[in-house]
Amino acid sequence: MTESVGTAESTSEPTLSVYDAIRRRRDVRAEFTGKPIAEDVLRRILGAGHCAPSVGNTQPWDFIVVRDTGTLADFADHVAGARSRFAESLPEDQKKTFDPIKIEGIRESGMGVVVTYDRSRGGEHILGRHTIDDTGLFSAVLAIQNLWLAAAAENVGVGWVSFYDESYLAELLGIPDPVRPIAWLCVGNVTEFQQVPDLERFGWRGRRPLADAIHLEKF
Amino acid sequence: MTESVGTAESTSEPTLSVYDAIRRRRDVRAEFTGKPIAEDVLRRILGAGHCAPSVGNTQPWDFIVVRDTGTLADFADHVAGARSRFAESLPEDQKKTFDPIKIEGIRESGMGVVVTYDRSRGGEHILGRHTIDDTGLFSAVLAIQNLWLAAAAENVGVGWVSFYDESYLAELLGIPDPVRPIAWLCVGNVTEFQQVPDLERFGWRGRRPLADAIHLEKF
Repeated sequence: MTESVGTAESTSEPTLSVYDAIRRRRDVRAEFTGKPIAEDVLRRILGAGHCAPSVGNTQPWDFIVVRDTGTLADFADHVAGARSRFAESLPEDQKKTFDPIKIEGIRESGMGVVVTYDRSRGGEHILGRHTIDDTGLFSAVLAIQNLWLAAAAENVGVGWVSFYDESYLAELLGIPDPVRPIAWLCVGNVTEFQQVPDLERFGWRGRRPLADAIHLEKF
Repeated sequence: MTESVGTAESTSEPTLSVYDAIRRRRDVRAEFTGKPIAEDVLRRILGAGHCAPSVGNTQPWDFIVVRDTGTLADFADHVAGARSRFAESLPEDQKKTFDPIKIEGIRESGMGVVVTYDRSRGGEHILGRHTIDDTGLFSAVLAIQNLWLAAAAENVGVGWVSFYDESYLAELLGIPDPVRPIAWLCVGNVTEFQQVPDLERFGWRGRRPLADAIHLEKF
């Protein structure tokens, strides 16, 4: 990478508690301001991702920072197509609920961070992956949640876009086999964090009680 | 679930910053004390997991709290077998490095939290999963990282065990198809958090520089 990953500006590490960050964190779509985030903020957020645990300490993730407006526009067009196809697949009542729901802020955020998974990292004998191969992939996902919570502490919004074909994104960003793009994250400054998740506010799907998710001794 | 998930005790929510939690968090094996964690602490940790983002707001995770000593012993025996098989598969030099590395604290922690993924939750049309099916699985992994960081803030250690066969664990805990166990987490009080990850301390694999993980515009 080159020296600069954001705009020059110096700020100190925020002290928001992990519990408050977990509550503040939203999957942001409509609240991006487009104002670029400071270089040191971006570096701290990516550093948080890079501090994640990983199977066999493989650290199989990479972060591609995309700000080229042409690339953002191309990806947004591709996502719009995937959105239409999903809308068309829905029964009429679900289609009506889905219609007003914004599913990405690719252009408005001004920046994408694409997280990839490289299954070849760490060689042939991966401690802990010989039994469950998916643990490699899981490691890269853990990095995303670290990044997401750090961003919340920085008052930076993150929105995970999954309406795309992996092969299209790999081609767009020159991601070589066997590296797999696993997420496009819109990352940027926001006007506010919604109190209630979008999909709950728009009536797509509500929250399950915690008690229902906890089982004792057996499922 | 029944009313009680831990021992009765009342403590207030810790204020450790998200960045400090990210740095403190370790994959704990040898440092469990065996002292049970308080009920409200366990509930806050599981609540943190339950606050994770999920594709289509499906919240496809469940948490099975296992403290039965017979179940812990059975699982530990199974894991010991998987450890031996991995050791046998290694070339001689890697085998020597691996020998002293502890890969689980199943009995010593006194508690396992098994996280599962239910792909049937949310019905047929999952907003955001129609393009990338793995995003359902990813959601449950995001919950694990929330739980892990909250635990770090609580001074509670978490160690992810992956040396097992999924079908064995599903059978052991009565997990019905299509629900999939994706992690056994040893969760418990600890004497300390190691400063340096075990696999780095024991020379299995070191840390990759952050700069190597960041790419601009293209991979």
